[in-house]
Amino acid sequence: MRLIDEAALADITLGSTVLGSGGGGDPYIGMLLAREAIRRHGPVPLVDIEEVPDDANVVFIAGLGAPGVLIEKLPRAEEYVRVLRELERLTGQTFAYVCAAEAGGLNAVTPFTTAAAAGVPIVDADGMGRAFPELQLVTPTLYGGRATPMVMADEHGNVMYLTSATNAWAEAYTRAAVGASGANAATALYPMTGAEAKERLVHGAISLAEDLGRTIREARAAHTSPVAAVLAKQRGVLLFTGKVEEVERRNERGWTIGKAHLSGLDEYRGRRMTVHFQNENLAAERDGQVVATSPDLIMSMEIDTGEPIPAEEIRYGYRVAVVGLPCDPRWRTAAGIELAGPRHFGYDMEYRPVEEMSR
Amino acid sequence: MRLIDEAALADITLGSTVLGSGGGGDPYIGMLLAREAIRRHGPVPLVDIEEVPDDANVVFIAGLGAPGVLIEKLPRAEEYVRVLRELERLTGQTFAYVCAAEAGGLNAVTPFTTAAAAGVPIVDADGMGRAFPELQLVTPTLYGGRATPMVMADEHGNVMYLTSATNAWAEAYTRAAVGASGANAATALYPMTGAEAKERLVHGAISLAEDLGRTIREARAAHTSPVAAVLAKQRGVLLFTGKVEEVERRNERGWTIGKAHLSGLDEYRGRRMTVHFQNENLAAERDGQVVATSPDLIMSMEIDTGEPIPAEEIRYGYRVAVVGLPCDPRWRTAAGIELAGPRHFGYDMEYRPVEEMSR
Repeated sequence: MRLIDEAALADITLGSTVLGSGGGGDPYIGMLLAREAIRRHGPVPLVDIEEVPDDANVVFIAGLGAPGVLIEKLPRAEEYVRVLRELERLTGQTFAYVCAAEAGGLNAVTPFTTAAAAGVPIVDADGMGRAFPELQLVTPTLYGGRATPMVMADEHGNVMYLTSATNAWAEAYTRAAVGASGANAATALYPMTGAEAKERLVHGAISLAEDLGRTIREARAAHTSPVAAVLAKQRGVLLFTGKVEEVERRNERGWTIGKAHLSGLDEYRGRRMTVHFQNENLAAERDGQVVATSPDLIMSMEIDTGEPIPAEEIRYGYRVAVVGLPCDPRWRTAAGIELAGPRHFGYDMEYRPVEEMSR
Repeated sequence: MRLIDEAALADITLGSTVLGSGGGGDPYIGMLLAREAIRRHGPVPLVDIEEVPDDANVVFIAGLGAPGVLIEKLPRAEEYVRVLRELERLTGQTFAYVCAAEAGGLNAVTPFTTAAAAGVPIVDADGMGRAFPELQLVTPTLYGGRATPMVMADEHGNVMYLTSATNAWAEAYTRAAVGASGANAATALYPMTGAEAKERLVHGAISLAEDLGRTIREARAAHTSPVAAVLAKQRGVLLFTGKVEEVERRNERGWTIGKAHLSGLDEYRGRRMTVHFQNENLAAERDGQVVATSPDLIMSMEIDTGEPIPAEEIRYGYRVAVVGLPCDPRWRTAAGIELAGPRHFGYDMEYRPVEEMSR
């Protein structure tokens, strides 16, 4: 167990944008909320997953935003505590630990608000090792883990408690509900035991986000390359270095969908890359050849600062390194590829590990 | 207390289509389900609202259909019991009585399925004295009654428990959820005490539906006019007799919205009528003058048989009597008109009681 203070939270926030793989939502607002909660209630204990008793109850905390709302409106800490308390009240169980559903983007930091305000520790793990756009796309789904019973609370005071037939149904209901609310919503979902958490979750995901954030920060301070440091830290692959020439982007069902087209710089001069995104970056083609796909992580990082550029913000003129990072091994199983591979998102591509494919 | 058997259920079903005011959903499928439950479990006790103890708990049972689904797919009795049991489990209360939310259309009969299968009596009342297209449009709303906690269960096995900030939010969440389910859903909502039920509900609404159904059936058998009999029974007003010339109808947000244009017959020869509908018939204009609006009931009945013609089925060639029936007095208060009058539905019209307006 160690305590996460404001400084550690800042590193986690920065690192989460790398694990966001182009999506996951801007963690900035979530960080402000978590920082406020830490200032008010003190640092948050982050516990190693092995420290969690097998019979303890753990639950994911995550925020969901109605399209376009999150960046304009600060969510409230109140809902992030309410979802935990309502889940406890309605299930009759006590949840002694909370956990991030995704260590990528906004939801890497939202659980800190719950943890600080409710006085419970955070488990150093997540259900993705990255970010994904649908709530069934988590490693517990691969083990038959259930998203529900879950609670969703919006800022208007509406509270929904759901038991769903499948995790895909939980996604459908929750997405519809957050759309109806027209607001941000906090959720507590995937209740599981400590034993299940140890088996099903990506261990050390929060520490990884922090480590990546620290790596970028230190490289910036030392005037070395943050991109190179991230690649070294994560056995990542440099897929391309180039300038954004054109972005095709449309909003559909509240998703940011499209392609970014890049022309090469340096050793990639004269070559081209297309990055396909649906909230997250999901596939990269270099000179017409697929070099990386989901569930591996694909991230555009600004060449000099290493700043990860989200798919919804990338635009003409950005000079970026496109990097591929290996996903958690569980995503590389047949079930993992079926759940979250390129075909799930409608791309007619075969998944192969990024480190092989990009050779 | 008296027992509702198959024959009484048939009269209630027919009468509910009058109270449906052009909408409320086709009760035929709901009747089949309720009849099956009565055959299996025996007749259902219908209790006068004055017999309900003040401290007993009462709850509305209603079905909601995703657009276009209900007529094709038989809902299951299972969900109509599940919503009651889940509400009891999650609130820790026992509901000894169920009640119809609306005595018009489908939801006049859906509570009979719950009542027969769960072995609880039905209260002879409803929350409208008619049908309306939104769940906040009930008389309990006029008293500050809350739609939630409520439970919704669909045929896929998904169960949603909602506590909402307002009844309009309950409507928004439930509508979104039933849309996501793509299926029928059963709901248990507006939990209230016996004392509240006595104050807030339209007394005798189920008996009224039965009475109207019996009136039409007996008039048909006696070869007298069912339309005249219904008008006499309910102090109704004949607004028009005519032939349907044209129907403008569109589907929007799952609602059937439009106008039916009629040319006069008999004493109305040479005159014209337009009936405006949004699921239910909501306003009638005769020769350009408004002669009836919601919350009063407006119904097109086939001239010879007295068969009520729903707004979604009315078409060229139908020969109908358009009748206006006075709504429950509570709808005629300022609050009632604000909640469910013509302006709520976007019509720039003033409400006046149909018996005055049509003079």
